[in-house]
Amino acid sequence: MGITVTVTTSNADVDATLVELAGRAAKLDADNALAHTRERFLIPPNLVYLDGNSLGVLPAAVPAAVDDAVRRQWGSGLISSWFEEGWWEAPLRIGERIGALLGAAPGQVVAGDSTSVQLFNTLMAAARLRSGRRVLLTDPGHFPTDAYLTDSVAELLGLEVRRAPAADVPATLAEIGSDVGVVSYPIVDYRTGERWDLPGITRAAHEAGAVVVWDLCHGAGAMPIGLDEAEVDFAVGCTYKYLSGGPGSPAYVYIAARHHDAVRHPLTGWHGHADPFAMQDAYKPADGIARARVGCPPMLSLLTLEAALTAFDGVDLSELRAVSLSLTSFFIECCDALLSEQGFEVATPRAAERRGSQVALRHRDAVQLVPQLAKRSVVCDKREPDVLRFGFNALYNTHSDALTAVRTLRDLVG
Amino acid sequence: MGITVTVTTSNADVDATLVELAGRAAKLDADNALAHTRERFLIPPNLVYLDGNSLGVLPAAVPAAVDDAVRRQWGSGLISSWFEEGWWEAPLRIGERIGALLGAAPGQVVAGDSTSVQLFNTLMAAARLRSGRRVLLTDPGHFPTDAYLTDSVAELLGLEVRRAPAADVPATLAEIGSDVGVVSYPIVDYRTGERWDLPGITRAAHEAGAVVVWDLCHGAGAMPIGLDEAEVDFAVGCTYKYLSGGPGSPAYVYIAARHHDAVRHPLTGWHGHADPFAMQDAYKPADGIARARVGCPPMLSLLTLEAALTAFDGVDLSELRAVSLSLTSFFIECCDALLSEQGFEVATPRAAERRGSQVALRHRDAVQLVPQLAKRSVVCDKREPDVLRFGFNALYNTHSDALTAVRTLRDLVG
Repeated sequence: MGITVTVTTSNADVDATLVELAGRAAKLDADNALAHTRERFLIPPNLVYLDGNSLGVLPAAVPAAVDDAVRRQWGSGLISSWFEEGWWEAPLRIGERIGALLGAAPGQVVAGDSTSVQLFNTLMAAARLRSGRRVLLTDPGHFPTDAYLTDSVAELLGLEVRRAPAADVPATLAEIGSDVGVVSYPIVDYRTGERWDLPGITRAAHEAGAVVVWDLCHGAGAMPIGLDEAEVDFAVGCTYKYLSGGPGSPAYVYIAARHHDAVRHPLTGWHGHADPFAMQDAYKPADGIARARVGCPPMLSLLTLEAALTAFDGVDLSELRAVSLSLTSFFIECCDALLSEQGFEVATPRAAERRGSQVALRHRDAVQLVPQLAKRSVVCDKREPDVLRFGFNALYNTHSDALTAVRTLRDLVG
Repeated sequence: MGITVTVTTSNADVDATLVELAGRAAKLDADNALAHTRERFLIPPNLVYLDGNSLGVLPAAVPAAVDDAVRRQWGSGLISSWFEEGWWEAPLRIGERIGALLGAAPGQVVAGDSTSVQLFNTLMAAARLRSGRRVLLTDPGHFPTDAYLTDSVAELLGLEVRRAPAADVPATLAEIGSDVGVVSYPIVDYRTGERWDLPGITRAAHEAGAVVVWDLCHGAGAMPIGLDEAEVDFAVGCTYKYLSGGPGSPAYVYIAARHHDAVRHPLTGWHGHADPFAMQDAYKPADGIARARVGCPPMLSLLTLEAALTAFDGVDLSELRAVSLSLTSFFIECCDALLSEQGFEVATPRAAERRGSQVALRHRDAVQLVPQLAKRSVVCDKREPDVLRFGFNALYNTHSDALTAVRTLRDLVG
């Protein structure tokens, strides 16, 4: 992609910097190993969309798939589509596709329900696996729904919630570890974009005898996760951010195979029954990950998600991560060059291994700047009081997007 | 609609009966006050679809609405559509439309999640409203997911589940009423199609000091329900049966306004928070029915449901009920005339007030007959071991459908 440089300052140094950065952006985009995947998305013309960490853009495969699901599968197939079109198996089939993006061997992921529902069901199941231990250890900066549901689970089971920053988990566990049953953290902080040490925290939790529940919302689809390799116990996540599954697309849950026989969920819906169509009086959980199914899943949203996931076909996750880091590194570089004297602070770590796929900037006018950027076709979002978030999806964002966003910000505050 | 009579028996009496019934069907369909609503659905040609009590047919308004939601709202509007297209308010807006079909004044119904999730969240909230009472009273023949979730709630809260047939509820409450906190029944039995006495059971529960949780899955959209008039406390239901919202379309919950301030749900997702975007640390439920929201709803399935509900525009529910009873009465009459000597038994009550909108037939070959009927373009379903279910949606089914189904059954077993 080319870029048009509109210099709005008389400072000749800035002019030169902009020209240099524009050239670098063009070269980085030309050399981008994932440049071809941008065509798998229907991006509105001239839009710089850096909010894929809230809602991913529409994958090109979706409209035809939805139309088929509505007109042919539902309209013509009607009730027969539950089996003849594979609706019944869809949560498991789509779970496999997601699992492959999480570093999970087959049979450990199922899709369905919202992240909030999955969190509740999973935190309850995790706490029951460690009954006798009275503490849930979690992040004081966790996303609100995680915080609320952790409190609700603790109240129901008579447990205590302790909160410690992710970096302090090993020290906290060294102190109170024998009381801790569940350790629950996000892989990436939703405000700052800081990436936590999933393998290290998981290892520390296991050494203390606890199980982990990871929230992957801000990581899945943006980097390799390596759930099996890190011996994670449980994980949940949404699919409408980097997985681009559409507004409110169903969430997923991962349960390590070694726990399948022991986990007991409170949401004992009939889709998780061992023999659902026998309509038996008593709940008997299905074998394997199918026991994490709950009720009838929203099939049109689920089939939309399935089509969206084809955007990952043939994509190497290490390569995806490299492109993601190139985008966020270049964005930070542009911020340093163009915004350092304009009241902005980069809130995201500069060390690549500590970064997710978004960059957060702090600025006192953050709340007003978001709509002003949107009017200039640069979409990001805010977290009050002072955070601007710029999410980068390596499947469709470009280095030129990064520069345009920074340049537009400078124009607004300059 | 005309009907082609293919007489496959040499019995002249049966010939005459068929001719008479076909004439009656044609006249009843010609006089049907809701004949015009059939055009609001895309019914496959020559299909007799009597499984709308499992999955309703595709409403004609849906394909364009879904395409708009996908391409324009998601594809072009992207994140801005959460507010500019009314996505955020959709669960409440659609809840109002459903509430109007349930006899609920505004502000008491919200759509979202599966019936199973809504049942869990609602049974928990109901039991907490009557903490101190140790019994959940429910139907021994309740749909499995209701049974399983009632057991799960009882285990979590240390309660006891007692099961009594709906007809015995007043007697049971007279005996153990002071122990009963929650009375939980379906409005219509999913196998036999028998309709229970919602006002009477609700009154008996209240006299005993309990609250009621009604499962409306097999009633909503097929008859007036009168939730407010009967002073129901809680109700939940799916939307993919008589409401024709599509496969797995989101469920809904009704909570009487008088309980709003007191109910406490375990699923404290951030969408139910009083100030969700303030991202506060502690859960504070929203005012009104919005506190029953949980997580991010599956928006495409939700907007599909919204379009589907337009099929009810201008429909008087008393008239709908009259057409429904005409259809099921005529179906029973056809069964009496043509199937009484073929090993079939009508399992649904003959008294109109005790009937939902389906007729169940018992037959020893029920399981094999369902696919044989489907091959002849008559779709119904089974419940093992011996029940055939024929669901009638008064918005699109005809008396000719009823006769064709019975005639085809007779051909198969004759």
